[in-house]
Amino acid sequence: MSLIIRGGTVVNADRAFRADVLCDGDRIVAVGDSLEAPAGAQVIDASGQYVMPGGIDPHTHMNLPFMGTVTADDFFTGTAAGLAGGTTTIIDFVIPNPQQPLLEAYHQWRGWAAKAAGDYTFHVAITWWSDRVHEEMGVLVRDHGVNSFKHFMAYKNAIMADDETLVKSFRRSLELGAIPTVHAENGELVYQLQRDLLARGITGPSAHPLSRPPAVEAEAANRAIAIAGVLETPLYIVHVSCKESLDAITRARAAGQRVYGEALAGHLIIDDSVYQNPDFDFAAGHVMSPPFRSKEHQRALWQGLRGGNLHTTATDHCTFCAEQKAAGRDDFTKIPNGCGGVEDRMAVIWDEGVNSGLLTPSEFVKVTSANAAQIFNIYPRKGVVQAGADADVVVWDPAGTRTISAKTQFAKGGFNVFEGRTVKGIPSTTVAAGKVVFHRGELMAVEGAGRHVDRPAFKPVSAS
Amino acid sequence: MSLIIRGGTVVNADRAFRADVLCDGDRIVAVGDSLEAPAGAQVIDASGQYVMPGGIDPHTHMNLPFMGTVTADDFFTGTAAGLAGGTTTIIDFVIPNPQQPLLEAYHQWRGWAAKAAGDYTFHVAITWWSDRVHEEMGVLVRDHGVNSFKHFMAYKNAIMADDETLVKSFRRSLELGAIPTVHAENGELVYQLQRDLLARGITGPSAHPLSRPPAVEAEAANRAIAIAGVLETPLYIVHVSCKESLDAITRARAAGQRVYGEALAGHLIIDDSVYQNPDFDFAAGHVMSPPFRSKEHQRALWQGLRGGNLHTTATDHCTFCAEQKAAGRDDFTKIPNGCGGVEDRMAVIWDEGVNSGLLTPSEFVKVTSANAAQIFNIYPRKGVVQAGADADVVVWDPAGTRTISAKTQFAKGGFNVFEGRTVKGIPSTTVAAGKVVFHRGELMAVEGAGRHVDRPAFKPVSAS
Amino acid sequence: MSLIIRGGTVVNADRAFRADVLCDGDRIVAVGDSLEAPAGAQVIDASGQYVMPGGIDPHTHMNLPFMGTVTADDFFTGTAAGLAGGTTTIIDFVIPNPQQPLLEAYHQWRGWAAKAAGDYTFHVAITWWSDRVHEEMGVLVRDHGVNSFKHFMAYKNAIMADDETLVKSFRRSLELGAIPTVHAENGELVYQLQRDLLARGITGPSAHPLSRPPAVEAEAANRAIAIAGVLETPLYIVHVSCKESLDAITRARAAGQRVYGEALAGHLIIDDSVYQNPDFDFAAGHVMSPPFRSKEHQRALWQGLRGGNLHTTATDHCTFCAEQKAAGRDDFTKIPNGCGGVEDRMAVIWDEGVNSGLLTPSEFVKVTSANAAQIFNIYPRKGVVQAGADADVVVWDPAGTRTISAKTQFAKGGFNVFEGRTVKGIPSTTVAAGKVVFHRGELMAVEGAGRHVDRPAFKPVSAS
Amino acid sequence: MSLIIRGGTVVNADRAFRADVLCDGDRIVAVGDSLEAPAGAQVIDASGQYVMPGGIDPHTHMNLPFMGTVTADDFFTGTAAGLAGGTTTIIDFVIPNPQQPLLEAYHQWRGWAAKAAGDYTFHVAITWWSDRVHEEMGVLVRDHGVNSFKHFMAYKNAIMADDETLVKSFRRSLELGAIPTVHAENGELVYQLQRDLLARGITGPSAHPLSRPPAVEAEAANRAIAIAGVLETPLYIVHVSCKESLDAITRARAAGQRVYGEALAGHLIIDDSVYQNPDFDFAAGHVMSPPFRSKEHQRALWQGLRGGNLHTTATDHCTFCAEQKAAGRDDFTKIPNGCGGVEDRMAVIWDEGVNSGLLTPSEFVKVTSANAAQIFNIYPRKGVVQAGADADVVVWDPAGTRTISAKTQFAKGGFNVFEGRTVKGIPSTTVAAGKVVFHRGELMAVEGAGRHVDRPAFKPVSAS
Repeated sequence: MSLIIRGGTVVNADRAFRADVLCDGDRIVAVGDSLEAPAGAQVIDASGQYVMPGGIDPHTHMNLPFMGTVTADDFFTGTAAGLAGGTTTIIDFVIPNPQQPLLEAYHQWRGWAAKAAGDYTFHVAITWWSDRVHEEMGVLVRDHGVNSFKHFMAYKNAIMADDETLVKSFRRSLELGAIPTVHAENGELVYQLQRDLLARGITGPSAHPLSRPPAVEAEAANRAIAIAGVLETPLYIVHVSCKESLDAITRARAAGQRVYGEALAGHLIIDDSVYQNPDFDFAAGHVMSPPFRSKEHQRALWQGLRGGNLHTTATDHCTFCAEQKAAGRDDFTKIPNGCGGVEDRMAVIWDEGVNSGLLTPSEFVKVTSANAAQIFNIYPRKGVVQAGADADVVVWDPAGTRTISAKTQFAKGGFNVFEGRTVKGIPSTTVAAGKVVFHRGELMAVEGAGRHVDRPAFKPVSAS
Repeated sequence: MSLIIRGGTVVNADRAFRADVLCDGDRIVAVGDSLEAPAGAQVIDASGQYVMPGGIDPHTHMNLPFMGTVTADDFFTGTAAGLAGGTTTIIDFVIPNPQQPLLEAYHQWRGWAAKAAGDYTFHVAITWWSDRVHEEMGVLVRDHGVNSFKHFMAYKNAIMADDETLVKSFRRSLELGAIPTVHAENGELVYQLQRDLLARGITGPSAHPLSRPPAVEAEAANRAIAIAGVLETPLYIVHVSCKESLDAITRARAAGQRVYGEALAGHLIIDDSVYQNPDFDFAAGHVMSPPFRSKEHQRALWQGLRGGNLHTTATDHCTFCAEQKAAGRDDFTKIPNGCGGVEDRMAVIWDEGVNSGLLTPSEFVKVTSANAAQIFNIYPRKGVVQAGADADVVVWDPAGTRTISAKTQFAKGGFNVFEGRTVKGIPSTTVAAGKVVFHRGELMAVEGAGRHVDRPAFKPVSAS
Repeated sequence: MSLIIRGGTVVNADRAFRADVLCDGDRIVAVGDSLEAPAGAQVIDASGQYVMPGGIDPHTHMNLPFMGTVTADDFFTGTAAGLAGGTTTIIDFVIPNPQQPLLEAYHQWRGWAAKAAGDYTFHVAITWWSDRVHEEMGVLVRDHGVNSFKHFMAYKNAIMADDETLVKSFRRSLELGAIPTVHAENGELVYQLQRDLLARGITGPSAHPLSRPPAVEAEAANRAIAIAGVLETPLYIVHVSCKESLDAITRARAAGQRVYGEALAGHLIIDDSVYQNPDFDFAAGHVMSPPFRSKEHQRALWQGLRGGNLHTTATDHCTFCAEQKAAGRDDFTKIPNGCGGVEDRMAVIWDEGVNSGLLTPSEFVKVTSANAAQIFNIYPRKGVVQAGADADVVVWDPAGTRTISAKTQFAKGGFNVFEGRTVKGIPSTTVAAGKVVFHRGELMAVEGAGRHVDRPAFKPVSAS
Repeated sequence: MSLIIRGGTVVNADRAFRADVLCDGDRIVAVGDSLEAPAGAQVIDASGQYVMPGGIDPHTHMNLPFMGTVTADDFFTGTAAGLAGGTTTIIDFVIPNPQQPLLEAYHQWRGWAAKAAGDYTFHVAITWWSDRVHEEMGVLVRDHGVNSFKHFMAYKNAIMADDETLVKSFRRSLELGAIPTVHAENGELVYQLQRDLLARGITGPSAHPLSRPPAVEAEAANRAIAIAGVLETPLYIVHVSCKESLDAITRARAAGQRVYGEALAGHLIIDDSVYQNPDFDFAAGHVMSPPFRSKEHQRALWQGLRGGNLHTTATDHCTFCAEQKAAGRDDFTKIPNGCGGVEDRMAVIWDEGVNSGLLTPSEFVKVTSANAAQIFNIYPRKGVVQAGADADVVVWDPAGTRTISAKTQFAKGGFNVFEGRTVKGIPSTTVAAGKVVFHRGELMAVEGAGRHVDRPAFKPVSAS
């Protein structure tokens, strides 16, 4: 089955140019002027539009188990919402409980993901340490297409990795050819600040950002960078939300260290005034970690993306409905952390970033797909529109508009942090694995059509 | 006439992959596995080797008039030496005398360049200001393929541009869609320090670096960045030689400003101990501006290249023979400034950068060709190995070695700052415009075969 | 005539302690517990109050000639207003016209200052260069108690010093044992931005800050620092108003360079929203250079004072009445630049700085008097409460309040940038040269009572 | 008993001036011109010399128990050596074993210190945490003159404080009015690097610096600063040895945080080439933590002292003889860490710092006594030459020279890191508690003459 996208401007990370894009099966087979298409090929008219690699969201949590329940979006609804927003691949997280074997958790998540409508792959979290963890990291890299491990520096008394675990896991990653990633917040400080706030009777959502100030995040970012630097591993820092963390990355990169930073669409757009809203559901709906920050930090994040010190954009898509959020009505530390966004990421970043002139279209492609594909070693299968690549393409209508709302979105959870925002620049058509899965507002996602994307290891470095 | 490069690993800025490269006429027409070549095609065996875009040296001075004489290398010998080193394109400089019309100077240089063996294009220096200069900048951009203007912040009482000229020319560049570039040294301080040193009887080449300390360069870099930032123009800083200048760039980029930095092969490799050599010819042979710096600065430059705060590598190739250098025997300020390197740049950077693990092969391509092509808007014609690009290709033998020496080089001038250095990793074959021009030590450069490369303007920004 | 201040807490830069202060004539003769006073000594009860060195305002312009008129405050009314605010010494500026001999201008200003009620001394501006300027700088240092020279990097086509003048004057200062000071704004950029704004029809006071953005100030600060660094002179930067300039100072100091920064009371307290006020008189009343900045910059300035990268606080007191400001009604570049503050500086800094916990009382003394006395070499005659020092003392009532208003102030000009602000912490008594000149709201300033303060040169550094 | 120091130049932190200094009993009673001394007063001729506050070494380990033995210097020999070098007060450390009650350890150390010849006081280390530790911190502050607590971030499996202990102890310090101090090295990384080096068979002293690179120190400094910043406590970082740690302090101070840094005389003078010495005794004699660094770091430390980002100089005096050091002959991790210096600190800092022009004499006083006295709240009892202060004075002969050698020193241990260095600028006379204890090479230290110096708490901050 062939499909041809005609008349658009192809945008890759390195340039933009007029070309047609011909897909056959699940691959792109040609990119060029005035391509001939086989008889019967489906034709998509992209005139006046951009043709870009399908988005990669390197940070989602679909079907995340939480306190006896799970997030609102499972792998089908979550990836389908992504397709509606132009995102054709997600990188989700396997999060073993402490003491749980990695492989057991990995297979659990693979099972849940079987219903995905879009492509997916997994970071695996290292939440504890033992010889078995050491061993299973190797199995995952060699046999299961995993090339990244995640470490939570927050969440004391739960999944927090202490320095010993960080050091051992980073080193193991290096010898396996995997890249360590971190959620950078100092869990000890967060814990202390939470206890203090509760002791002072400050229990509502407005306490959430007070318990996680920028310095708490910057400390952990700096520590992870130092450990990676000393051990000579690369490092990827998820959801960089504040100037001080970004500064740590910028300093390290200026010194030649291979550190990569991820910004969330929410952190780029939403500011911390949301936590002052007297409506608990509204304020709690915005509770995620790190929290939203002041406008000064947003400006810094955009500068980071533009200046090359931040590399990817993601969502940390992790949707809880109001009933679930209500668990923390009397204690903000019990509000399940998480917001959505997989459906909106590309549009809000285009709207704020490209329309304003902060980013060029090629830079948009870098930060929405190409860089993630490069960092997690699935380039050029993903992240570029060229012959040989997966036929994951989004046709982007720079003149199209949409008013974002939980009422009209495909994602579940009944809440949207971008509620009411009208964006200019939206996907008109999403092609995944060579098939049109979204077109002009209509979603044609197919449960189970998504594929696991094996990510090969980098060349491992021996310790000799 | 067809030519096929078989069995190598193509290295582009975004990735490396096994592929054959087929050229027809002066273009690459196919890159892929097991390509079929037309009968009679010339076959180059690249097995075990890398196939990379021909180098672009964005900073050379061939045939530069100086005090009634000219540099040792003219456009033929200079570009031919470049071809021997894997560099297929140079960006040279038109430098009008103050009061000289830009177009007159431009045509002078175009005339001298007609004999070039490799491709060339020109930055045009703005050494004075008038309405006519303003007007002719427009003509150059619109009609002559110029999209960059150079400003010397040093050389007081000669070609130094003061702040007024910088402000006016940067602004004019912006409205034309050209990028301003600067030689960043504070000419007033250099002048004062020179006078002081001479007054104290310090007249030899060892005075040269004392008259141009890092702070003098950093001040000018910072000033040019500030002017560009306020006027919202991009900026390219040539021959960044010290940590302090690089820091200024890094700060600006971290704040999202579009500033680009160039490092010279010499500054990356040679340290300032050369000026202490009692042999005048040796010390004077290294006199260029900015001068060579201490090892600490070299380390910083490599970090800058790796961390993305420096973008290109160049040579400032400007060769004077010992007789010419001797003009400053009694007064270091009269030593003609300049060193060679166009023949050696790629090899020394590979040797120090890639062999040491500081740079990957793709990063090598970025800093030796792709980034220059992007910044000066000749990408993807240059700077990438892909169908449609110019057939400028270097086949790189990572196991080949060469001991650099003025005795065996193709370049003129009788001196080489890399004298005696044995590099591992050398061009085995250079293809320019689809023709083999260098192969295993044999140079087949053809006078006049080089072409002027028109560089289109960027989208101009109106002042409204 | 003796005077004793009893029962207060003496605050010096190094510590605070309970002590009485005994003055005899114009000197402090004893500081200690339960001092005995001579019979007939005037007794001031300072119980519950702080006893601090009289303030030094190192940046005022009294009686400044401007376009055929002069500022509203002359040396009598200006210094009297200072005494009412606890400031007993000012450092004003001699500003020769270009081509005017320095000594001629110096004597002009000395004549105007003869009526001062408080002590005064002068920075002398270098607005042009010639051998005579070089010579007269020496005369001023040797014979007239001048140890600082001022350079305006702004005000193109008027008093702007170009790099050549800066280099020559800094060097001359070094050999004389004087400290160079700069008004740091890039005059060329200001000029261009002014022209642009006027050309676009933006002529009101709101254009003023747009013509002098932070980058314009930071560039000049960085340049002056570089010149001072290369020539190895100390440097004092007046009215640092923005984070970027402060960063330049912080970097230089971190590298061990002796650079000092001054913050204005206005810049610490007032933000740039004042320029949006539709009332021309109000907006124009705030026009000074550098302009007021956003709150982010104010926060940075306080951090600079606290962290030791800024050293003094001043006012740039330069009062124009509404009629004078109206000269720029149709062209913001013609609004005379200047605001008042000499009467309010200490109170607003105490109120915002000490009451908030940002500064300790000893740090307050550092930034309101002691550091200025040290930097300009009049310590310990000024800037400390100890035996032997001048009897310039302010008794500070931390519980006293005052609502600042042009209606109730002693200073002239009919405008106050702090209008309506109620401060807690005010002078209850000011003693100057051993006499009570202000007490509980009553001003007893005496015309002509002020003395010129000779400032000895630092040890000069020979150029050998 | 009276004593008068005649004809010298008194140097305090704020200025230098000609004056006599009269002491009566253990106090200074007058500082002034041509003082009259009581009949029978001992007269010291200081003409041509400086008269400065006796040095304070805020970091020593006398009589430190170690593996069943103790350091070579006990409190008598150690403080006596200090007196010979002009240092009249030390701040030593009480280091409880984990699980040992603080008070028990405190009384142990007080007992050992009873024989001291010079004044002393103690930081108390928090090496573990419990309610009892929390309680005893309060007793120490309220009843025993302790106002600082020390935390080792290194020494895993021994006395390392983890983040939880740091957070709890910093917070407790704040409410008590004590200042937390840290030894900043990431113990986990050190441990891992040590294991790696040993595993690779690198067992000699040259491995020591490899196991503790700058990044390891900077990480911990940054972490402690972040914790202090979030909890709003001041912080004092001991033995800052590298540029990266200093940068962390500089950044924090620039942001207004009250962070203080200490440099060791050894780190300022000695570079890491000592570890390459093939003589085990020599190399092991230099093993201390953090290790000596390259010259680039030394330059940074001097800049930090000069620029006000480092505040005190100390020695970490902790002497082990060759037999003790030999315990690590086959395993560098077993070499007892420590070097001497209390006798040499002031002379080497004067020689390198003041003679070179890097520091003024007043700055020398700041970094050798006044700042330590201020930070640890014993000013103006210590750290200044003025009436009322302790009669701890050093008469400094700027023309005197001494060649440092273990053979001629008073300190024990048989080793000196400054061996063979000839310094210009030495104490000619040391006066402690009003008595001459050292004069022209002759030491008159009296066992037990030293006194414990109670240090009052700062004003505590309630957590409300």
